[in-house]
Amino acid sequence: MIVWSNGQLTPIDQTRIDPRDRGFTLGDGLYETIRVCDGNLLRIDRHFTRLDVGLRVLGIKLKLDENALTRAMRAILEANALSNAAIRLTVSRGVSARGLAPDPTARPTVVISATLYTGPAEPAQVMVATVTCRNAASPISRVKTICCLDSILARMEAAKYGMDDAILLNGDGWVAEATAANIFAVIDGVLVTPPISDGALPGVMRAAIMAHTPLGECSLSADDLSRASEIFLTSSLGIRPVVAFDGRALPVGPVAARLAAEL
Amino acid sequence: MIVWSNGQLTPIDQTRIDPRDRGFTLGDGLYETIRVCDGNLLRIDRHFTRLDVGLRVLGIKLKLDENALTRAMRAILEANALSNAAIRLTVSRGVSARGLAPDPTARPTVVISATLYTGPAEPAQVMVATVTCRNAASPISRVKTICCLDSILARMEAAKYGMDDAILLNGDGWVAEATAANIFAVIDGVLVTPPISDGALPGVMRAAIMAHTPLGECSLSADDLSRASEIFLTSSLGIRPVVAFDGRALPVGPVAARLAAEL
Repeated sequence: MIVWSNGQLTPIDQTRIDPRDRGFTLGDGLYETIRVCDGNLLRIDRHFTRLDVGLRVLGIKLKLDENALTRAMRAILEANALSNAAIRLTVSRGVSARGLAPDPTARPTVVISATLYTGPAEPAQVMVATVTCRNAASPISRVKTICCLDSILARMEAAKYGMDDAILLNGDGWVAEATAANIFAVIDGVLVTPPISDGALPGVMRAAIMAHTPLGECSLSADDLSRASEIFLTSSLGIRPVVAFDGRALPVGPVAARLAAEL
Repeated sequence: MIVWSNGQLTPIDQTRIDPRDRGFTLGDGLYETIRVCDGNLLRIDRHFTRLDVGLRVLGIKLKLDENALTRAMRAILEANALSNAAIRLTVSRGVSARGLAPDPTARPTVVISATLYTGPAEPAQVMVATVTCRNAASPISRVKTICCLDSILARMEAAKYGMDDAILLNGDGWVAEATAANIFAVIDGVLVTPPISDGALPGVMRAAIMAHTPLGECSLSADDLSRASEIFLTSSLGIRPVVAFDGRALPVGPVAARLAAEL
């Protein structure tokens, strides 16, 4: 695999992240996962916009050169002979001395890699995570950072019970999102999704759906989800129906199917 | 600087972290900061115990070889000609393919580095962070992970106001800790510190103080701290008096001075 790292294209096993990189030492960075379909970088503008918001929230001094990054992504796709792929774009605050205080002279680290997109994920069986919760009051919950441990713990809990994914609640018990996807449900005939203020990441697919179809943004409890007629998960990689929620079987519903066809 | 990385001693600019390392991509790891005083690794047993708890909480399959790691730390000190130092021991879950689900075959990455210990930190002016809060309900708050973004944001807020550190509250508004230190206060003549359940990291120095001197573990509000006669911060690197809390001047108190001398 060839990766792009601060302007260089190199084989991944010859690409070096410095052990002092704050991405590695402090989780001090952001990422985007971009779906590539037949060579097209889907919703790339929304990804750049979200990344730019994240850079501002974290105070990482990187002026996004969207044209240069787009060229780098195309070069990575070509070098790896991929036209259907998941691109990962990672930005960290770069190499610094010990300590939490950022070094204003540090140069951010930017890494781009791509892996084969292996088709839509199978419909998911999901549970509500009990081991951890999402910190909705932190601005970190509203940008896509590399600090993913709560999601990792929830995903591991799901795997332990034979589930495909877990729903994270926030500290007040409201539904926030799945471990790497937003959640949508049809309840009493209305399509709804939790608001960002409840701890939902502002997902790129979530925004695309909201721009495409009428729906309600409202706080949801696990009980609300228990009486949904349809639930699905959304991420930049696609729309994934939920066929079991906390042990109750659900059909692959018409809304997910329609949106998957239209978006 | 020479570092130790999975058994190898190498110059840091020749030491490579793989771009797929989950420490770099997902913040999926732990660390310890160990003070070295005249060649002695202070409270190293407590550090190993805490790291071991963290490995279990995260489900990272690394059997800690304390003797080998201690030898590695001594080798790093010798290679860098340091006898008063801050050692950083980082463990990540290692290199994996894309996605949150851990690869059970991944070999953890272990990196050890050391920097010169430059003496006790100056007394601190601190404020209460307003930009973010600590997720006390997450098990992540009770182990020392590399997901430090909330602390980084709080530290940046402090710097913006000319303060040295910030106190993080939890989601319910109770005092949790400083950005990289526990907090102690003398209130109504009694030494107190917030409980782990309020989001305080189980600090190694915190534990040493609790084993050494009588004190109360109780939930504290920012208002409680406002009427403290003494406040100090503790970390593995030392005990740091607070000389201003949210704009109110405080003396360097006798309790901090006594503990610094005795521990």
